Amino acid sequence: MLHFENDYNKGAHPVVLEALLASNDQAESGYGTDRFTQETIALLKDLTKCPQADIFLLTGGTQTNQLVIDTMLAPYEGVIAADTGHISTHEAGAIEMTGHKVLALPHELGKISAQQVAAYLERFYADGNHSHMVYPGMVYISHPTEYGTLYSKEELEALSQVCRSYQIPLFLDGARLVYGLAVQNAVDLPTIAELTDVFYLGGTKAGLLCGEAVVFTKQNMPKHFMTQVKQHGALLAKGRLLGVQFKALLENGLYEKIGQEAIARADELKGILQEKGYRFYLDSPTNQQFIIISNDHLQKLGEQVACSFWEAYDDQHTVIRLATSWSTTPKDIEALKEVL
Amino acid sequence: MLHFENDYNKGAHPVVLEALLASNDQAESGYGTDRFTQETIALLKDLTKCPQADIFLLTGGTQTNQLVIDTMLAPYEGVIAADTGHISTHEAGAIEMTGHKVLALPHELGKISAQQVAAYLERFYADGNHSHMVYPGMVYISHPTEYGTLYSKEELEALSQVCRSYQIPLFLDGARLVYGLAVQNAVDLPTIAELTDVFYLGGTKAGLLCGEAVVFTKQNMPKHFMTQVKQHGALLAKGRLLGVQFKALLENGLYEKIGQEAIARADELKGILQEKGYRFYLDSPTNQQFIIISNDHLQKLGEQVACSFWEAYDDQHTVIRLATSWSTTPKDIEALKEVL
Amino acid sequence: MLHFENDYNKGAHPVVLEALLASNDQAESGYGTDRFTQETIALLKDLTKCPQADIFLLTGGTQTNQLVIDTMLAPYEGVIAADTGHISTHEAGAIEMTGHKVLALPHELGKISAQQVAAYLERFYADGNHSHMVYPGMVYISHPTEYGTLYSKEELEALSQVCRSYQIPLFLDGARLVYGLAVQNAVDLPTIAELTDVFYLGGTKAGLLCGEAVVFTKQNMPKHFMTQVKQHGALLAKGRLLGVQFKALLENGLYEKIGQEAIARADELKGILQEKGYRFYLDSPTNQQFIIISNDHLQKLGEQVACSFWEAYDDQHTVIRLATSWSTTPKDIEALKEVL
Amino acid sequence: MLHFENDYNKGAHPVVLEALLASNDQAESGYGTDRFTQETIALLKDLTKCPQADIFLLTGGTQTNQLVIDTMLAPYEGVIAADTGHISTHEAGAIEMTGHKVLALPHELGKISAQQVAAYLERFYADGNHSHMVYPGMVYISHPTEYGTLYSKEELEALSQVCRSYQIPLFLDGARLVYGLAVQNAVDLPTIAELTDVFYLGGTKAGLLCGEAVVFTKQNMPKHFMTQVKQHGALLAKGRLLGVQFKALLENGLYEKIGQEAIARADELKGILQEKGYRFYLDSPTNQQFIIISNDHLQKLGEQVACSFWEAYDDQHTVIRLATSWSTTPKDIEALKEVL
Repeated sequence: MLHFENDYNKGAHPVVLEALLASNDQAESGYGTDRFTQETIALLKDLTKCPQADIFLLTGGTQTNQLVIDTMLAPYEGVIAADTGHISTHEAGAIEMTGHKVLALPHELGKISAQQVAAYLERFYADGNHSHMVYPGMVYISHPTEYGTLYSKEELEALSQVCRSYQIPLFLDGARLVYGLAVQNAVDLPTIAELTDVFYLGGTKAGLLCGEAVVFTKQNMPKHFMTQVKQHGALLAKGRLLGVQFKALLENGLYEKIGQEAIARADELKGILQEKGYRFYLDSPTNQQFIIISNDHLQKLGEQVACSFWEAYDDQHTVIRLATSWSTTPKDIEALKEVL
Repeated sequence: MLHFENDYNKGAHPVVLEALLASNDQAESGYGTDRFTQETIALLKDLTKCPQADIFLLTGGTQTNQLVIDTMLAPYEGVIAADTGHISTHEAGAIEMTGHKVLALPHELGKISAQQVAAYLERFYADGNHSHMVYPGMVYISHPTEYGTLYSKEELEALSQVCRSYQIPLFLDGARLVYGLAVQNAVDLPTIAELTDVFYLGGTKAGLLCGEAVVFTKQNMPKHFMTQVKQHGALLAKGRLLGVQFKALLENGLYEKIGQEAIARADELKGILQEKGYRFYLDSPTNQQFIIISNDHLQKLGEQVACSFWEAYDDQHTVIRLATSWSTTPKDIEALKEVL
Repeated sequence: MLHFENDYNKGAHPVVLEALLASNDQAESGYGTDRFTQETIALLKDLTKCPQADIFLLTGGTQTNQLVIDTMLAPYEGVIAADTGHISTHEAGAIEMTGHKVLALPHELGKISAQQVAAYLERFYADGNHSHMVYPGMVYISHPTEYGTLYSKEELEALSQVCRSYQIPLFLDGARLVYGLAVQNAVDLPTIAELTDVFYLGGTKAGLLCGEAVVFTKQNMPKHFMTQVKQHGALLAKGRLLGVQFKALLENGLYEKIGQEAIARADELKGILQEKGYRFYLDSPTNQQFIIISNDHLQKLGEQVACSFWEAYDDQHTVIRLATSWSTTPKDIEALKEVL
Repeated sequence: MLHFENDYNKGAHPVVLEALLASNDQAESGYGTDRFTQETIALLKDLTKCPQADIFLLTGGTQTNQLVIDTMLAPYEGVIAADTGHISTHEAGAIEMTGHKVLALPHELGKISAQQVAAYLERFYADGNHSHMVYPGMVYISHPTEYGTLYSKEELEALSQVCRSYQIPLFLDGARLVYGLAVQNAVDLPTIAELTDVFYLGGTKAGLLCGEAVVFTKQNMPKHFMTQVKQHGALLAKGRLLGVQFKALLENGLYEKIGQEAIARADELKGILQEKGYRFYLDSPTNQQFIIISNDHLQKLGEQVACSFWEAYDDQHTVIRLATSWSTTPKDIEALKEVL
């Protein structure tokens, strides 16, 4: 079976595993106070060119979204997001569980625009009844989006400007950011740190066993954040597990290598799909590719290739996702070529 | 100034006030165990032809929506509603505050249809990822809707059937039900009790100082409901305040009289508006009438008539609401006719 | 049957009822923006000698406690209270429902002392693990307490000082404050306004049908408080119901008259109880009197006097409460004297 | 520096690390559906002699406590626990965050007794006001407790019986259960499975990088549990991380070996402490030992031995904890002997 169903079906990148082995016998203090976490924080400040950043390592994406949104919003505030955003659809109500409404805007290719957000905010404050409504208190975007698309620098700048003019934070969900960074002409880490108020760099989908690194870029980490992480049940006793892995990912450019290789594989995959006349659902520059295939074809393909059901396209067709990752080899691509 | 801005700008119906006076010196036990509340419950069982009903009196509409939804849903469930539903828009996130997502469907004249709901539920359970999503656990409708429209018996039956086939309750927000009941050929209380799983009959907008009567129609009142009301901060020490008022509203057909007179006034108002060539936003059979007028006109009108801004129609026009109520007199209508 | 079971078994004080009647036909805007509420606010600023106060009228005591505590605390904070405090025992978990722990300290006669609170706070911050614990973010006291006792000026000053030195608010639950104010040498409203950060003056137990007036004394009303009230399901459409009643209670010294008469009746009751050799559970200067009687005696007494079970004293005896109120007449006391 | 401060200062047991390496290249499905998790579940059913068990792997202890308690309790229920229980003190209000009160009973050596619980429940239901209070819906115990003590089989049986007679679940927090199982005459896994309704076997403190295995023993796993785990932000994409580690811990008796060796080291440590005349705070049979030393002594000791501040004993003395674990070697003990 060929595995293209997602970017988290294998364990960890060998370098990351090696780091776990090498550090195993060192005694470390708990709850994120270990030296590896501290070194990760220093590395990230450097890579983001954001020396004033406050950084915290968490375990998973939904956990991170829930924590960032809940701790940054006032209780009467909700978060603006694309209707296809992960928090809008696939987090089982984790945002609502902590009391906040997701204010969904219609997406275009997984994205929302500064114009949309500005119009929403303007309408909200112009509405004579707005004090009976949920205050928009944050803008959430994912980059890459759930459809593999990216925000351009201009798009991010425009969103950032709208957020600043309304004094609400811009939060970038970077669960797959490592793949987004590797795309040609994509925004880089310092730009993201500058234009957002908080973002995270995902580790789980980039070769760690688990781990997401949250970066508060504007000296705006919520007060007693560690206590709030604990209160949400999200604090690891062995914080070192996250520190060791992230340090390995960030030092010596491993995250860049991982991103570049996965994007190279995705480009090859894209070429093959085009060559073979597959129909794309949309044009994604990142490691997730979405194609529309007939249900019959899908059934046959599924016998040899693990891929991900995305959504029904029509009665006869399905949108599926094929994803490359840090673990996809050129050989995997060749084998896939045979069966496509 | 003529008052047509809403149906809650005066105090209480004289008969209700009189009942408060008459009962004032009687000592009663607290928290809804008083004899007036008990008598109200008996009256409502009778009027709804639902002897097995469990009934509780609460203070306000948002409070009632929050309590019913929060106590009937499992924590992982959300509530399906029209995107114009009161819980979707004008309750400041009260539903989300208690952990539940409002699953908004596009409205048609303030309503959602059985077909829409069925399609949503079908799609949900067909989605391979649905266990990562919010389970739809209830359907919420308002009747009359926020646009003054009503569900027909056939529409309610169809909604009821869909809900039953998925074993989720149908909840009818009857904040203005007294006005809905008075419309010709509208569904009556026993029909509503039969077709819904829970509904409430609003008092606040029907001549009480405050009060909403929740009716659980299928022996489905949530366990320890009184304790949960207390936990939500919604239990009145002097529950008699609600019991006395509701008893007055329900006995001797007062609620029917109130409804009929307000609908008669609304029909007159409608006639005048038509006669004078006003443009209706939609056709409402109940006590709320929505018209589109130019902003200039609105400003002038506003000097003599209190009316309610509803929404901007375009740059030059506004949708406004004119509402009749138990307190609107034929003389009010005549006076309004002069200035329209 | 003689009614001494509580101070909320009758309707409203005649003057309050009269005010409801007199104002009934005036059209008013909703949600607390009516003129009566505005006048109540002005009266309260005056009576508390606190011109900068932010004031909001709510419906009930548990609702008020929940709202004040939830909106003033950070999510990771809890509230210090006596273990006999209403929020610790008889609010069905309303405080925990909104995410906050009640940090209970052992009471003495229903009270907690500045020393206890200071010791708790000192120990908390000295504890090396305190960032894994619930931060104490507020001190809650009731005055009169659940046992009818009062804080002296010196006790309040000391509590106030501790709170200020830790920069946490002191919240006084004044559900029965009207009775507390009428006791000789008791602290007055301006003193309470000065020494606390937020308190409320209870109406429900002082002759209103419902209503509690919250006073934020230090320009510290939580942001968008009205929206948060709505979000908690606690906003009345006809806010006038609270405004009209409170205006009647506060103008022309009605609240003082009510308090003084109830305390006079309680003193008479106390005298009778002493004379007849009843055993007091504790010495209360306010309208609630607690006595220990044998279970046999209680059963007989209960046939003629409604009184309140408080707690089991031992196998043979029970602590009961006898309460006077605005509705207790000298004749009621005489009648009670006969049967005691 | 010698490390006795806790049982989670090193990485993972070598066998566990080896398992992560060996499984790394296998593609696995996500969210706990991988084969390792399935094998772990089978192993645990076997070891607990509880074939009907429902088992779920989670990441950390506070997360597990929050999830189990929140998903098993009704919203109006709280959880009975020792006042020294982890959920009462050191979880930053994680239980209250999800709406539930911790009903704390005074501990004896970290434990609560069946008598205490029965008395509490009896008093609760006998209290005429109990419907205004938090319903006790579960009993939480930790085993070993926060003081290293253990419940005897008789104690567990008695607690179990009380819980069953009130139809509320008994929940055993087994964060350190691996060490508790290794003590002579201690209750074994099948007994725990039989007498409790839900418990967990902690991995984090027993040589895993992270992981706790929750066992619902009475076909009582809350509905849609996986969705609720997701909603709480606690679902790992790479569930295999937990599955692989737990499988390694459970197969071939590794957990027993780990427990036995740590207890052997703790017994040696205890012998040395006794020999050297140290004063014990209490008698613990497990891997945590608590001694009272003077503050001067502590300061000197702290230069060579990492140990854990537990609580101030008096002005001059401190209670400290010394813990052994899977990573403590006989050589560590000898070295500690030198410096004690």
